[in-house]
Amino acid sequence: MAGPSSSILVLGGARSGKSRFAEGLAIDCAADRHYVATGRAFDAEMRDRIARHRSDRGDGWTTHEEPVDLVGQLRQIDDPSRVVLVDCLTLWVTNLMLENQNVMARSAELAAFLPQMKARVILVSNEVGLGIVPENRMAREFRDHAGRLHQQIAASAAEVYFIAAGLPLKMKG
Amino acid sequence: MAGPSSSILVLGGARSGKSRFAEGLAIDCAADRHYVATGRAFDAEMRDRIARHRSDRGDGWTTHEEPVDLVGQLRQIDDPSRVVLVDCLTLWVTNLMLENQNVMARSAELAAFLPQMKARVILVSNEVGLGIVPENRMAREFRDHAGRLHQQIAASAAEVYFIAAGLPLKMKG
Amino acid sequence: MAGPSSSILVLGGARSGKSRFAEGLAIDCAADRHYVATGRAFDAEMRDRIARHRSDRGDGWTTHEEPVDLVGQLRQIDDPSRVVLVDCLTLWVTNLMLENQNVMARSAELAAFLPQMKARVILVSNEVGLGIVPENRMAREFRDHAGRLHQQIAASAAEVYFIAAGLPLKMKG
Repeated sequence: MAGPSSSILVLGGARSGKSRFAEGLAIDCAADRHYVATGRAFDAEMRDRIARHRSDRGDGWTTHEEPVDLVGQLRQIDDPSRVVLVDCLTLWVTNLMLENQNVMARSAELAAFLPQMKARVILVSNEVGLGIVPENRMAREFRDHAGRLHQQIAASAAEVYFIAAGLPLKMKG
Repeated sequence: MAGPSSSILVLGGARSGKSRFAEGLAIDCAADRHYVATGRAFDAEMRDRIARHRSDRGDGWTTHEEPVDLVGQLRQIDDPSRVVLVDCLTLWVTNLMLENQNVMARSAELAAFLPQMKARVILVSNEVGLGIVPENRMAREFRDHAGRLHQQIAASAAEVYFIAAGLPLKMKG
Repeated sequence: MAGPSSSILVLGGARSGKSRFAEGLAIDCAADRHYVATGRAFDAEMRDRIARHRSDRGDGWTTHEEPVDLVGQLRQIDDPSRVVLVDCLTLWVTNLMLENQNVMARSAELAAFLPQMKARVILVSNEVGLGIVPENRMAREFRDHAGRLHQQIAASAAEVYFIAAGLPLKMKG
């Protein structure tokens, strides 16, 4: 298990069980659990997904919704007695792109901030780079941003998991 | 190796060698081998794929074609002396969706039935959740259905493999 | 580590860190390093990607650009004192398809040639088969060609790695 101030990256595909696995890790970490939801409920489908995640998660979490200023949010709730679960990085990257933010700068800032955190932080993200090259240029840029961010976070993470069919494969740690 | 009544899930991408790997497992299991093909030959490309699979498989198999009522088919051929190979779950999910069936109910029914089988059963499926989020809503639903089904089956499976480049990675067992 | 004449296959998704990992392997192999770039700079985006790869790679490489006749190029530079890095196979398959070449014949030829090489050869390729089935027929054929080629090369390779978030998972070796 990682030290209290080291981060854990949980990668997986759609409906791979990555969020549930990450929640299980968090429950083993600390009683004071904070959940940072990066998704925006911009349509009914997204609202359903968010509600389902919240209901799957059960009680015992303080939930924060922060689609854009992830580092600011993490700084605000950082405390050595806590575990913080960020779900998920790919939605955060999407939100940054939609706001025309400098994704590479924001990603570098997050990757630099994580190792300084006092709370244990668990980050969930979608692996999106294993299909055909998308025809849409923005989708290609998104894939590149997500892949680069995963590499940066994995480099300093204490543990990295790849989830498929609900099962974890430990890549690091 | 799994007990005689436990199931094995073989996941992999397109042309990953998952069917061939599963066939190898089946050959090691029992001489009385039954193959349940869920694919429908609705066009020339699909007919080609089915014919190629059949020819790759070689002799020594009793083949059943069942695109929809998978549990009914499995119940009919269930026998402790047999190994049953289902290829593949993702085509079955596609067929259920095209028939407007309740995919979640059918998936739960299959997941509940498998641990009761007397034959050893090997299920092949495509991992489809590791690319960009599809723009098409039905494709997103399909991904969710497939991912959820994989989690359900993996939870009770004795062994789970992830195949890439023809090589197995054991996720469970 | 593989013997001097055996090949190494490095698979991964977009921006997974596969090229950098392969370059690290090459640096550990031999001082006389040859890089075979299969990509064609047919537009500004592709030129950017190629330039970035070249700059990431640093000095100490002899670079060869060969989009189509990969076996011919490998034969020309084959030498037991060298390590040859091919980046990447999926771009090569794309180029063969665009030229209406017989991809299966060219793939079989490459797979047969690699075990005869005197140089150590490291091949990088994109895993592209883990998303939704593409609607475009050519994309489906491409996926099949890439998957088949990976299986053929992995069968005789000394080592096979799957890279995610910059981290290697050893599949063989």
